[in-house]
Amino acid sequence: MLSENNGVLHIDGISVEKIAEDYGTPCYVMSEDHIRSVCKLYKGAFDKFYEGKGMPLYASKAFSACEIYRIVNEEGFGVDVVSGGELYTALKAGFPASKIYFHGNNKTSDELKMAVECGVGRIVVDNKEELHMLNKIAGKHGKVAEISFRIKPGIDAHTHDFIKTGQIDSKFGVALENGEAFDIIQEASALNNVKVVGIHCHIGSQIFDSDPFELAAEVMLNFANEVRSKLGITITELNLGGGFGIKYIAEHNPKAYDEYMRLVFAKVKAVCEEKDFPLPFILVEPGRSVVAESGITLYTVGSVKEIKDVRTYVSVDGGMNDNPRYALYKAPYSADIATKLGQPKDKIVTIAGRACESGDLIQEDIALQDPKAGDILVVYATGAYNYSMASNYNRVPRPPVIMTNNGKARVIIKRETYEDIIKNDVL
Amino acid sequence: MLSENNGVLHIDGISVEKIAEDYGTPCYVMSEDHIRSVCKLYKGAFDKFYEGKGMPLYASKAFSACEIYRIVNEEGFGVDVVSGGELYTALKAGFPASKIYFHGNNKTSDELKMAVECGVGRIVVDNKEELHMLNKIAGKHGKVAEISFRIKPGIDAHTHDFIKTGQIDSKFGVALENGEAFDIIQEASALNNVKVVGIHCHIGSQIFDSDPFELAAEVMLNFANEVRSKLGITITELNLGGGFGIKYIAEHNPKAYDEYMRLVFAKVKAVCEEKDFPLPFILVEPGRSVVAESGITLYTVGSVKEIKDVRTYVSVDGGMNDNPRYALYKAPYSADIATKLGQPKDKIVTIAGRACESGDLIQEDIALQDPKAGDILVVYATGAYNYSMASNYNRVPRPPVIMTNNGKARVIIKRETYEDIIKNDVL
Repeated sequence: MLSENNGVLHIDGISVEKIAEDYGTPCYVMSEDHIRSVCKLYKGAFDKFYEGKGMPLYASKAFSACEIYRIVNEEGFGVDVVSGGELYTALKAGFPASKIYFHGNNKTSDELKMAVECGVGRIVVDNKEELHMLNKIAGKHGKVAEISFRIKPGIDAHTHDFIKTGQIDSKFGVALENGEAFDIIQEASALNNVKVVGIHCHIGSQIFDSDPFELAAEVMLNFANEVRSKLGITITELNLGGGFGIKYIAEHNPKAYDEYMRLVFAKVKAVCEEKDFPLPFILVEPGRSVVAESGITLYTVGSVKEIKDVRTYVSVDGGMNDNPRYALYKAPYSADIATKLGQPKDKIVTIAGRACESGDLIQEDIALQDPKAGDILVVYATGAYNYSMASNYNRVPRPPVIMTNNGKARVIIKRETYEDIIKNDVL
Repeated sequence: MLSENNGVLHIDGISVEKIAEDYGTPCYVMSEDHIRSVCKLYKGAFDKFYEGKGMPLYASKAFSACEIYRIVNEEGFGVDVVSGGELYTALKAGFPASKIYFHGNNKTSDELKMAVECGVGRIVVDNKEELHMLNKIAGKHGKVAEISFRIKPGIDAHTHDFIKTGQIDSKFGVALENGEAFDIIQEASALNNVKVVGIHCHIGSQIFDSDPFELAAEVMLNFANEVRSKLGITITELNLGGGFGIKYIAEHNPKAYDEYMRLVFAKVKAVCEEKDFPLPFILVEPGRSVVAESGITLYTVGSVKEIKDVRTYVSVDGGMNDNPRYALYKAPYSADIATKLGQPKDKIVTIAGRACESGDLIQEDIALQDPKAGDILVVYATGAYNYSMASNYNRVPRPPVIMTNNGKARVIIKRETYEDIIKNDVL
């Protein structure tokens, strides 16, 4: 949790000056207190509004690391993973395989084998090739894999082009509207080594309303009802995916996460009652909303270039390497000079990274307190899709991740070294 | 060098089927033969058209790895590096420090220290803060650092917004037009532990004409002449940067690289004669043009999704993880099914990656031979800014880099393992 003391930003009670001094910059810092409080909101909503008949899954693509799997496990979450690497990490952290949901639009046979062997809870099947590949692999292992299906419900959650995924023109899953979803379930029901359990959809990212989630629940339940009446198969698990908005900047106003859930549960109950459909086990997959606002990035300011009548560039010791989201999506972020919180934000600047690339910017035309070389600059809400998308472009080592909790800080991912970077070079 | 045999793509005489079988997919493959032939074009141009009074520097941000430093060293190149990590890699590869040029808009004091200690040939100073930091560090080491300056010559090479770097609105360097460039040289001339040797500019990327380079040479020499007359300092080294275009797709028509050089040298000679200015030592910094077309990426096709009346998605086992350039810049690429080269390219498809992100595409609406699951798909001209920008997004291991030469293949960067990925996680 963030606070201010004498103009200096603190996280879980620790001054960011102290963190920068102890661990160097750039560094990611994540508040464990904050992560756990968000987890409790989601988990609590299931208990309060849905009789505990369901489970939130942490969408680990937002930030995958051993420590986060341990934390969400303690908070009663399952997880979703989208690759062998995420699965490997979760297992290494001791996460129970039965609570792991395996996603992906193009899982390899090695990954499916790994998932079947370790006994993940569900494999969310994306397409027919995968269905048959999985059936074969499960057969060879003498197992029956419990599966769900990634379905495009035809809902567009009005968000950035890159992160729309519910509509038919998507690489993910099978569409409802052209019968693909029905077909694949029918085909699966005839196979011996898979068991149809659930259906899944994911309608987008950074969604601030509950309406699209409620609509998705309704559409998916209507489909489940159709499957029941035409195929005699009762879907018992409804996975509504993620996409819950977070506050990157002041203008963003997400609902409280338990409020989204309350409204979604009410809709599910209403539709099920109307159709006389048994209440499904509900899953949701928050990722960004669990970790984004928990995280900040600390940089040291290097050169400050005031180009008269043009622009002021404030260069920091990180950039698109540790946060490629502005380069990729022009994603908005807010920032401060972390030791000048009381001072007026009267400088309009462009925060530039250190990579040898003009597009390496963190934010353009943002208001900041008067920045000087040596200042610590903080960018907020970097806990999701920052470390996870980081690169070694320009062979710059990736920053460490420091986790804070009630006045204490610890390293959960170590800073890369130059030795790490050339480790796989054949010398 | 690429060739076709019985419909199958070969690189340096080796079938890509064999490479995919031996090393797995995705993998990067680079032709050493091709890299060396491009190097010889640049190097030869200096000998033929400029009496050898200069040196090409390989811009290693395009692809930094021990092996590439060894190859360009053998070809008589220097290198430019933009970070401590690239410098570290070059030194580990045994590259002579004296032929290393150190760049960057925000070098850290640790990096400057490292550069001074190992004795790099030049430090290309970006701004005044850095100038004074460097002077201090060199002083502490009892050295005089030979420096060049990154100058914005005010030339816009008409290219993509992200990769324009010559104009005044740039995070890089000091501008000519507002006197910054003159000021910094004057200031440097009064310092004891730096020696002004050269000036540097970089006007953009993917430039297909020689005109902008010729113009840049003229502008920079006029400036050098001004510096001589007003400050009595003779600049002896002119670094014209990189930006030489390459052929990503059929529509791209770069000049032969020795032809660019011939025209630039002619311009330099003409201006020097006119101004009675001593012919400077010339440097250029090709990176992309040395390695891009030398490289290909091999993928295995997974699911092929024909969505009627919408689009066909061909999913491969890599994507924005190993090539983020389409997600970042909508960069054009050409591709083939590598074992069906003779067949008609009559399918219009979108090549999608495996990452859990809608924007994870390699190319949209591209013509391809009929793609089937299991096919090897090749994307061309991926030797630059692919491995170097790769990430572990979704905790997917980075592919290996295989180098080929005259019928033989070898690994120059090993495939990452899951163990590598969690190596810095605190368990």
